[in-house]
Amino acid sequence: MSLLDNIHSPADVKALPPEALGELCREIREYLIASLSKRGGHLASNLGAVELTVALHRVYDTSRDRLVFDVGHQCYTHKILTGRIAGFTDFRELGGMAGFPKPRESVHDAFVAGHASNSISVALGMARARTALGADYDVAALIGDGALNGGMAFEGLSDAGKSGEPLVVILNDNGMSINEGVGGIADMLGRMRTRVEYIRFKKWYRSSLMPHMRHLSGALSRGKRWLKERIITENMFDDLGFEYIGPIDGHDIRKVENAIRWAKEYRAPVLVHVITQKGRGYAPAEKAPEAFHGVGAFDAKSGVPKYTGEDFSSVFGRALTELAGEDESVVAITAAMKEGTGLIGFQEAWPERFFDVGIAEEHACAMAAGMAAQGLKPVFAVYSTFLQRCYDMLIHDVALMGLHVVFGVDRSGIVGRDGETHQGAFDVSYLCSVPGMRVYAPSNFREMRSMLRKAVLEDTGPVAVRYPRGGEGLWKADTSGETVRVVKPGTDVTIVAYGTEINEAIVAARMLNGSGVSAQVLKINTLCPLDTDAVMDAVCRTGALLVAEEACAAGCVGRQLLAAAEESGVALRAARLVNLGSGLLEHGAPEDLRRKTGLDNGSLAEQVLEMLHGKDET
Amino acid sequence: MSLLDNIHSPADVKALPPEALGELCREIREYLIASLSKRGGHLASNLGAVELTVALHRVYDTSRDRLVFDVGHQCYTHKILTGRIAGFTDFRELGGMAGFPKPRESVHDAFVAGHASNSISVALGMARARTALGADYDVAALIGDGALNGGMAFEGLSDAGKSGEPLVVILNDNGMSINEGVGGIADMLGRMRTRVEYIRFKKWYRSSLMPHMRHLSGALSRGKRWLKERIITENMFDDLGFEYIGPIDGHDIRKVENAIRWAKEYRAPVLVHVITQKGRGYAPAEKAPEAFHGVGAFDAKSGVPKYTGEDFSSVFGRALTELAGEDESVVAITAAMKEGTGLIGFQEAWPERFFDVGIAEEHACAMAAGMAAQGLKPVFAVYSTFLQRCYDMLIHDVALMGLHVVFGVDRSGIVGRDGETHQGAFDVSYLCSVPGMRVYAPSNFREMRSMLRKAVLEDTGPVAVRYPRGGEGLWKADTSGETVRVVKPGTDVTIVAYGTEINEAIVAARMLNGSGVSAQVLKINTLCPLDTDAVMDAVCRTGALLVAEEACAAGCVGRQLLAAAEESGVALRAARLVNLGSGLLEHGAPEDLRRKTGLDNGSLAEQVLEMLHGKDET
Repeated sequence: MSLLDNIHSPADVKALPPEALGELCREIREYLIASLSKRGGHLASNLGAVELTVALHRVYDTSRDRLVFDVGHQCYTHKILTGRIAGFTDFRELGGMAGFPKPRESVHDAFVAGHASNSISVALGMARARTALGADYDVAALIGDGALNGGMAFEGLSDAGKSGEPLVVILNDNGMSINEGVGGIADMLGRMRTRVEYIRFKKWYRSSLMPHMRHLSGALSRGKRWLKERIITENMFDDLGFEYIGPIDGHDIRKVENAIRWAKEYRAPVLVHVITQKGRGYAPAEKAPEAFHGVGAFDAKSGVPKYTGEDFSSVFGRALTELAGEDESVVAITAAMKEGTGLIGFQEAWPERFFDVGIAEEHACAMAAGMAAQGLKPVFAVYSTFLQRCYDMLIHDVALMGLHVVFGVDRSGIVGRDGETHQGAFDVSYLCSVPGMRVYAPSNFREMRSMLRKAVLEDTGPVAVRYPRGGEGLWKADTSGETVRVVKPGTDVTIVAYGTEINEAIVAARMLNGSGVSAQVLKINTLCPLDTDAVMDAVCRTGALLVAEEACAAGCVGRQLLAAAEESGVALRAARLVNLGSGLLEHGAPEDLRRKTGLDNGSLAEQVLEMLHGKDET
Repeated sequence: MSLLDNIHSPADVKALPPEALGELCREIREYLIASLSKRGGHLASNLGAVELTVALHRVYDTSRDRLVFDVGHQCYTHKILTGRIAGFTDFRELGGMAGFPKPRESVHDAFVAGHASNSISVALGMARARTALGADYDVAALIGDGALNGGMAFEGLSDAGKSGEPLVVILNDNGMSINEGVGGIADMLGRMRTRVEYIRFKKWYRSSLMPHMRHLSGALSRGKRWLKERIITENMFDDLGFEYIGPIDGHDIRKVENAIRWAKEYRAPVLVHVITQKGRGYAPAEKAPEAFHGVGAFDAKSGVPKYTGEDFSSVFGRALTELAGEDESVVAITAAMKEGTGLIGFQEAWPERFFDVGIAEEHACAMAAGMAAQGLKPVFAVYSTFLQRCYDMLIHDVALMGLHVVFGVDRSGIVGRDGETHQGAFDVSYLCSVPGMRVYAPSNFREMRSMLRKAVLEDTGPVAVRYPRGGEGLWKADTSGETVRVVKPGTDVTIVAYGTEINEAIVAARMLNGSGVSAQVLKINTLCPLDTDAVMDAVCRTGALLVAEEACAAGCVGRQLLAAAEESGVALRAARLVNLGSGLLEHGAPEDLRRKTGLDNGSLAEQVLEMLHGKDET
């Protein structure tokens, strides 16, 4: 009988004797490695946060205290300890347990997570609500050193430090930002981690004052002021009004628990700096933590991934590396996603022209604009969902001056198992509202290469190339020379699609052929500016239209086409828009989500029949 | 003959003997006060930055060196010194000189400005372009202490500090954030401004090292490291990798010039902290700098504004103050815009429930979400153009959990003289793409009050109330009980409008009556979710449709209506969309911009005739 078998809620964790906690952590690690090797997930960060999470559950009651995760992919131990170990059997599948904290899944999940750097702001909001409403619970934010680089985290620290609200920020510093060498903040943390004098000073400081802390907070505050006036500020956190504790060995569970307990009881903004090791306890992940950040299935013994195939990201990265060889003004920018966006090779080939700014998408975008204004050709590779954070910079810094910044918009459309925080549902809507923005949608690797080439070397002004997670499908021709292209002729109905959705449209048309319906398939290559005349010319030949797109309904291509048709007096026999709708798309296998949204080939064929049939009846 | 008469370019400023600079500054102040008293503009911040701007032009050659303004409303002296004094005669009028830096206006304007906190990122991009392309110019960013609170500024500092790129950041600290008491960063600057020991230390430090600085940078760096290792970091800037100089009296032109010159020559990231006084040299503005931030015309002698009327912002503020009296869970949030959004009265009435977070829109939005998750009813009052920065937080922090956060979206639609960076052109597009977002568009003060009441006390989930700059028009009835409302019957054509554009539609309909066309006017109250059935029912009675809206074309209400018509098989006789289009709308008087975009009543009537007439001919 293992310890883990008897953990059904955080109360069981609190009931364990301290000497059993090491064994519990060992069992959790073993379970995580075995479980994730089968179906993938975020491994390295979770292995690093086991002791920290156990300690948090020994101090806080997460059913009423509010523990706000930042990014949240390090929540697996938290899910295990809050009665959700069974969820790992259908983990990240449609209808199964999510890979990120979800309040609808458990009362122990205080807030949705998935994007970076928001946790301090959210936690401060909760702390202020508690104070305003006279409630009685504690609030903590758990943020990684990578997410701390994001500007919103700084905004949160600045306001929280000043607020005086009892609030604990736990900095889970696994050296992410330090290893990548991004930013002055990483350097600062690096110095803090290793500065012996600093730690000695803190030890003296706290050993003399901590035992009497609650009574001595006035004296403490005076003492600190005295030090400050003599230029001895401790660090940036202290500057912003936080009481700083650390650095603490994040794998010494007793120390971590003590520090968090003290911080909770201090009744003021406290930052606890915990040093953890990514991949801790699993040799392959300790050796190459980045390779085990987000993984697919792998061999548990060797750590060797079970599948590695070519995908749009890798094709993008190689194509960009080539373009940089042809034009020395080409530079690549990433916001802490060089692996995900396929830029490792670029960095190796052109280290001087590669810029990883850390989790700082807004800065990346504005910096790219500055580069473009002075003659570089910057290419910012970024996930669709993370580019949302740049909406203002797209308009203000890039579009207002019509600057030639290229956006490699990765993970567009249905992304899959990471769920609603990661689906690329909104980029068509927000990119097409940016003045002068050009948006290409390659459907395969050849088009990816030629559209990127056109975007970087030939176009002017802002350009985005929008491509999906994963690989290409049956359609392999390069049609990038045209804004729109009929890829299959037909007379009864037109199915319009773009990106890899074109593959579903083509198969649907073949299916319809079997039902006696001749469907024309039209592929759009340039989403913006949209060549509505060319599309409508082709559509009018069939008189009926279905537009299938992996994009939210608001501002989608289909609406723009139908509006143009109505405005120019074209009366279609039948028209239907199939897209991701106005809601949110949860986690699940991409093929399951495609079926759910009616975007798979079978559903498309059915909807065409329904549309034509329904119209025939009237 | 004044000195100013002989200043035609920065070369003339450089040629002046140092002892003449005081007189030049005096003349510039006199000119600014006289000129702005006639037509308004940003006064207080410009009066504070006169010496600083003169010093910048004595050090840099802005025709090739790149001086990046942040926000940029403090650029008036810069415009005067770069040969644009004549521009103040048609200042901020359509076709006239802009109130913000505009590269298309002068080679001396390095980058567009208008939004906050981007200058360091842009400047770093320029510095990196210079290095990558082997060019030879200097780069400086000029940022205020208010804008420094924004997270993007921190992202920029962190990357720039680490980069080692020769780059000067000039912090124009006019105590903006300190006076408002926002954030730990304000406290930090406050301490830095007044710490005597600190200044003494710096003096010793620099007097011993500065004269030999360029030769001693290695020794300096070792010396600093020695200090750092002993916990004596100087401040946050230093932590992030900047060489810090300051604080310097921003009205002592010699000191400022020397510091900037030294910083420029140091060939590394340097931050120069300059203390200035808002409103300097004009008694009424020194006394009440906030009242003279953005002003209309005023009496130059007394400082008394020539016009103060009721507007949507003031009605919003009073209505919210009342609602807070009825429900103690109502709290108000602003991002450094309490005057502009009409929240002064709220702050006085409910100081404990008022949160000014400084320039930190993203934090404001995520904090509001945290508050809503724990039972408060947060209302975030923010300009349409500044809410763009929250697009990601609207989706991720608010919409994913369906949290009841209310957005008071001020300055929606045509804003006017502040130009393209300030027009509220995009909010309909981006708000309506946010899942579950409800958007109200009041047309007058009564509707403002009742819609805000409904949004705050009755609705659930995210809600935005979108209202314009300025006052109400002829339509004064409260129709907020309905999603859409026919405000004038008619049989030949339907004009659809919302917000204060309804006034133009009503007058256009009256004009059309004179031309024998019976126009129905339909007012939309709820833009999202859009009651397309109700609209189309009414539209179908006339068979022709013109939609007039102060919103960009992408994702506009008109497109959604036409798409719905086409999808449901409604063939209109004629349809036309009149909106702000796909481009950018420059500065000018609102009435001029309305005419330019075809949204004034005369143009609407003409376009209806053209549309009906054109259709008749075919």
